[in-house]
Amino acid sequence: MDEARLGFAWAWTLLDGLARAGLRRVVASPGSRSTPLTLAALRHPDLAVQMIVDERSAGFFALGLAKADHEPTALIATSGSAIANWAPAVVEADAARVPLLLLSADRPPELHACGANQTMEQTALFGVHVRAFHALPPPDTRTDWLADFAARVFHAARFPLPGPVHLNIPLREPLTPAGPTSAPETRPVPLVSKGRTAPDAALISSVDARLTGKGVIVCGPETLGEDARAAILDLSARLNAPVFADVLSGLRFSAPDDAAVLAHPDAVARQKPAFDWALRFGGTPVCRATAEFLRARKGAAQIVVSDCARFGDPDRIATHLVQADVALFCAGLRGRPAPADWARQLARLDDAAADAAETACAEDAPFEGALLRRLLAGLPENTPVFLANSLTIRSAEWFAGRRARALKIFGNRGLSGIDGNLSTALGLSAALGPTVAVLGDLAFLHDLNALALMRAKKLTVLLLDNRGGGIFDHLAQAALPEFEAAWIAAQVYDPAALAKAFGLRYSAAETNAEAVAAVLENLAEGRAIVHVAIDRAHSLARARKFFASSQLETCS
Amino acid sequence: MDEARLGFAWAWTLLDGLARAGLRRVVASPGSRSTPLTLAALRHPDLAVQMIVDERSAGFFALGLAKADHEPTALIATSGSAIANWAPAVVEADAARVPLLLLSADRPPELHACGANQTMEQTALFGVHVRAFHALPPPDTRTDWLADFAARVFHAARFPLPGPVHLNIPLREPLTPAGPTSAPETRPVPLVSKGRTAPDAALISSVDARLTGKGVIVCGPETLGEDARAAILDLSARLNAPVFADVLSGLRFSAPDDAAVLAHPDAVARQKPAFDWALRFGGTPVCRATAEFLRARKGAAQIVVSDCARFGDPDRIATHLVQADVALFCAGLRGRPAPADWARQLARLDDAAADAAETACAEDAPFEGALLRRLLAGLPENTPVFLANSLTIRSAEWFAGRRARALKIFGNRGLSGIDGNLSTALGLSAALGPTVAVLGDLAFLHDLNALALMRAKKLTVLLLDNRGGGIFDHLAQAALPEFEAAWIAAQVYDPAALAKAFGLRYSAAETNAEAVAAVLENLAEGRAIVHVAIDRAHSLARARKFFASSQLETCS
Repeated sequence: MDEARLGFAWAWTLLDGLARAGLRRVVASPGSRSTPLTLAALRHPDLAVQMIVDERSAGFFALGLAKADHEPTALIATSGSAIANWAPAVVEADAARVPLLLLSADRPPELHACGANQTMEQTALFGVHVRAFHALPPPDTRTDWLADFAARVFHAARFPLPGPVHLNIPLREPLTPAGPTSAPETRPVPLVSKGRTAPDAALISSVDARLTGKGVIVCGPETLGEDARAAILDLSARLNAPVFADVLSGLRFSAPDDAAVLAHPDAVARQKPAFDWALRFGGTPVCRATAEFLRARKGAAQIVVSDCARFGDPDRIATHLVQADVALFCAGLRGRPAPADWARQLARLDDAAADAAETACAEDAPFEGALLRRLLAGLPENTPVFLANSLTIRSAEWFAGRRARALKIFGNRGLSGIDGNLSTALGLSAALGPTVAVLGDLAFLHDLNALALMRAKKLTVLLLDNRGGGIFDHLAQAALPEFEAAWIAAQVYDPAALAKAFGLRYSAAETNAEAVAAVLENLAEGRAIVHVAIDRAHSLARARKFFASSQLETCS
Repeated sequence: MDEARLGFAWAWTLLDGLARAGLRRVVASPGSRSTPLTLAALRHPDLAVQMIVDERSAGFFALGLAKADHEPTALIATSGSAIANWAPAVVEADAARVPLLLLSADRPPELHACGANQTMEQTALFGVHVRAFHALPPPDTRTDWLADFAARVFHAARFPLPGPVHLNIPLREPLTPAGPTSAPETRPVPLVSKGRTAPDAALISSVDARLTGKGVIVCGPETLGEDARAAILDLSARLNAPVFADVLSGLRFSAPDDAAVLAHPDAVARQKPAFDWALRFGGTPVCRATAEFLRARKGAAQIVVSDCARFGDPDRIATHLVQADVALFCAGLRGRPAPADWARQLARLDDAAADAAETACAEDAPFEGALLRRLLAGLPENTPVFLANSLTIRSAEWFAGRRARALKIFGNRGLSGIDGNLSTALGLSAALGPTVAVLGDLAFLHDLNALALMRAKKLTVLLLDNRGGGIFDHLAQAALPEFEAAWIAAQVYDPAALAKAFGLRYSAAETNAEAVAAVLENLAEGRAIVHVAIDRAHSLARARKFFASSQLETCS
C-alpha cells in the first residue's frame, strides 16, 4: 500500500471507529497535512462535515454543536499554529464540560526537531485542559486496535466529566490518494456505558437531617437535563422551597406557572431572606447578588450537588459537596417541608421585583434589560437562544423574568469569555435550526470571522450596540481617568456595512419593540443582524433605578 | 495598605522593573482582573500601551512590534479564555524566536478549584512553547526582589533563544485603587548582557577543511542582522560562492548590485547545479525547490549555522551543525575560492530565470507573481513589507527578483500559519511607520478583527483575492472531487463593504500596474485596502508557464 493509501486507511479506520461509537459531526479547517483525516470524514456516510477557515471559530462552532445535544463533535486541523487556535474553545469546553474530539494532524517524527515547516511540538498542547491526550504513531498497516481505541476515546470525552480529548495524529506525504478510495475493512466497536453517579447513602442521610426549616434551591448557569429539572421541581414542591434559577439553568424558561421558580431571583436575593438550608445545583450563579445572599447565611446547611467533581462554591461555605446525578439525588431525599408562608414571602418579593422590572422596561428607548425581557417573552416555544457574556447575560438575569413555554437558553459560562460567542451560536443553529443570538458590540467584534459562516445558517443576531464594554460601567473601573481609553475601548464600526460584506440581512431598530419585532420577523430564515444602538448613560441610569426601586445596591 | 493599592504597587514594581530592563511597548486587552497591570502600564512614563479587544489579534500585534526591533513586547490580559487566545501568537513567537512577555492576570489561589467565574488553571498554559514560566504569588508588601526578577525575565525572553516568557500574576479584589496613585519606590535593576555565541575553534577548522571546490551559501527565511548580512556578502565574495537568499532573509532586498546574490534562487535551484559545499544560514528555505537542490547533493559538505540550537535541516543531510553567531562564524572562516566560472555559470541560470519571470509578469491581467514583482521593485527605500503565508510569500520567492535599495521584508515563517498575519503587519506599522502588507483573501479573512485597529495605523493592504487558498492549486489536493468544497472553501465576502465598516480607504484595481500604483499612492497615509481580483486558473497557468519556460517542474 502506498503512503497516501496507508494514511487514508489509517484516518478512515479511526474516524469510522468514532462514527460507530456515535460521532456524527465533524468541523474541519482547510489544510494540507490533515488531508487524510478531512477526506476520510468527507467520504464517511455517517459523518457531516462543516468546513471553517478560522480554527478558532471552528473550535467554538464545534462547541455550539456539542452543546446542542451533549454529544462529542470532532475537530480536524492541520499542524502548527492552526491547532493553537483551538485553545480558547478548548479551555471553555473544559470548564463548561462540553465533549470535543480534537484531531490534530502532525508531521511524522522524522520531521520534528529539524526545522521543518509548520512543525511544532503538539504533544500535550492543551495541558490539563483535556480529559485525555494520546499521541498516535504514524500510519501503519496494523489497525486492528484503532476502532476499539476510537470508541474508548469517544467515551472519555463524555463520561464521567465531559470535555475535550486530544489525539495527535502524525501523517506522512504523499497525503492525497490518487483515484477513488474504498472503505477499508471495518470493525464493530464495543458499546460503552455512560452511567450515572448514584448518591452515597450515608451522605444522603446526613443531608436529609439538615433539610429542616426554610429552604431554598439554587440552580446555577449549567443547563439541567429534563429529568433533573423535573426532579428539582418535584423536590421544590414537596419541601415548599422556592427555586432561585439562573437563566441558563433552563428552569426559568420551562417550569410551569405554578412551580415555585422565582422570576427575579437576583432581585429577591438582594433582600437576603434568611434561609435555613440551601440545595445548590449547576455551578456558581452568574450574578453576584445570589452569591452574597448565600454568603450571608454562612453556617446554614449549604449542599452543593454536582454529577462531576466540579463543585461551584467560591466562598467555600458549603457544608456538603455531593457528587451525584441530580435526579437520583433529589429522588433520594426526604426532608421536611418549610412553613407555608416561607414560599409566599419570597413570592411577594419576587412580585415586587417583577413590577419594578416591568416599570424599568416600559419606556421604549433602547435598553438592554427591556430588550432581553421582551425578546425572551416573545420568542416561539423551544427557540434556541444564545446569550453572550458580559452585560447581555446579566441583563437577562436581572430583567427577563420567566415563562412556562420552554426556550432553549445557552451561553458560554465555563470561563465566561467574550470570545467565540457568535461562532458558538452558529454551531447551535446548525444543530437546532432557527436560533437567536444576543450579543454586545464587543463580543460581536471579538468574533467577526464567524460572519463568513452566517450566510448559510439560520441565525438571527440581536446586536446590543452600547459602544464598548457596558459591563464596566457597573464596576469600579468606571471611576478611573483612563476608563474610556482602556476599558470602554469604543471600537467604532458599521454593522450595516459588515452585513453587506457577508451578504447578510440587516435592520436597525430605534426602539425595544422594533428590535424584538425585527428578530421575530427574521427568525425563520436567519442570516440577519438586528442592530440597536444603546446610550450607555441612559442604560446605566435605568438599571440603577431598577436596583434602587427594590432597595437594592448596584450589582455586577 | 488596602488590597487595591497593594495590587497596584505590586503590578507597578513589576512593570517598572521591566521598563528599567528595557521594555517600552505593552499591548493590553480590556478586562477586570488585569486592572492593576493595565493601570500600572498606562501610568508608567516609559511604557506605550496599545489597547486591543481581541487577545489573539493583540498577541500577533505584539509579535509584529517585537519583530520590528527584536526587543520584547509585553502582553496583558485578564484571566480565563482571554489568555488562551494568545496561544497562536505564542507558538509562532516560539518557532520564529520573537521575544514576548506574557503577563496573565489570574484569580488568587483561594478562588481556584471552587467554581469561581473566569477561573482556570493557568500554570504552564503554553507548555514547552515558552522559554520560562513563573507563577507569581499574590500581591505582597515584600517587593524588594521584583525589579531584579523582572530584569532576569526580560533577559530570558531575549537570550540565548529569543521567545515568549510567561508570568502568571494572581491579583485580589478590589482591583481598582481609588484616587490618584503615586509610584512606589523603585529600584535599579542589573544590566544583563545578551552575548553572542563565538564559534568553536575546532569545528571551524573542520568546516574550513571542507570549503574547497564549488560552494553555495543558502540563506533561509530568518531576517539576518546587518552585521550578518555584511559578513555573508564578504564571505561570498572571498570564496566566489553565490548566495541563494530567501526573500525574508533581507539579502535579496539590500545587497549591492555587484554582490553574487541570485535574484531567482528558486529557479536556479531547480536546475540542481552540483556544488561541493553549502553553507546554510537562517532556517529552512520557503520553497521546496531549494530543499530538493540541497537533497540532490547529499554527501557534500553541508554546514548549517545558527546562533541558537534550532538547525533547519529537515532532510537531515547536514554534515555540520554549528551553533555560532553568523558574523563571527563567517569572519573566522578562511576557505578557498571556487573556480571563477562557477559563479558565472549560476549567474547565467539566474539571468535566464529573470527573463522568464519578466515575460511571465509582462501581461497586465492580475497575477500574484507580477503583483509581487512590480510592488517590491517599486516601493521606496526601507519600506517595511509584510508578506502573508501560503501563495503570497511563494509568489514573492518565485517572481520578485532582487534590488539594492533596501526593503524591510517580514513574514511569519516560524509556523507559516495564515493566522494573525494582518495583526502582525499592524504591529510592524505601529513600530516602523508606513508599511505594506500583501495578503491572500484567506489570510485576510482569518484575521478580520484586526480591521478594528487599522484606522489608526499607517498600513496599506494589498489584497490578492483569488477566492480561497490558491496555494492548493499547486498541490495534489487539487485533483480531489472534494477539492472546491473542502480546500478552496471560497468564502465570498465584499472587501469594499469591510473597508466601509471600519472607516478604511478602499480601491479596486483591474491590473497589476493599477494595483501597485494604488499601493504607492496610499502608502504614506495608510489605513487603505487595495483589492485585486485574480482568476485562479489564469494565475496557475502563468505560474506553470514560468516553471516550464526554465524547464522546471511545478513546485510548492
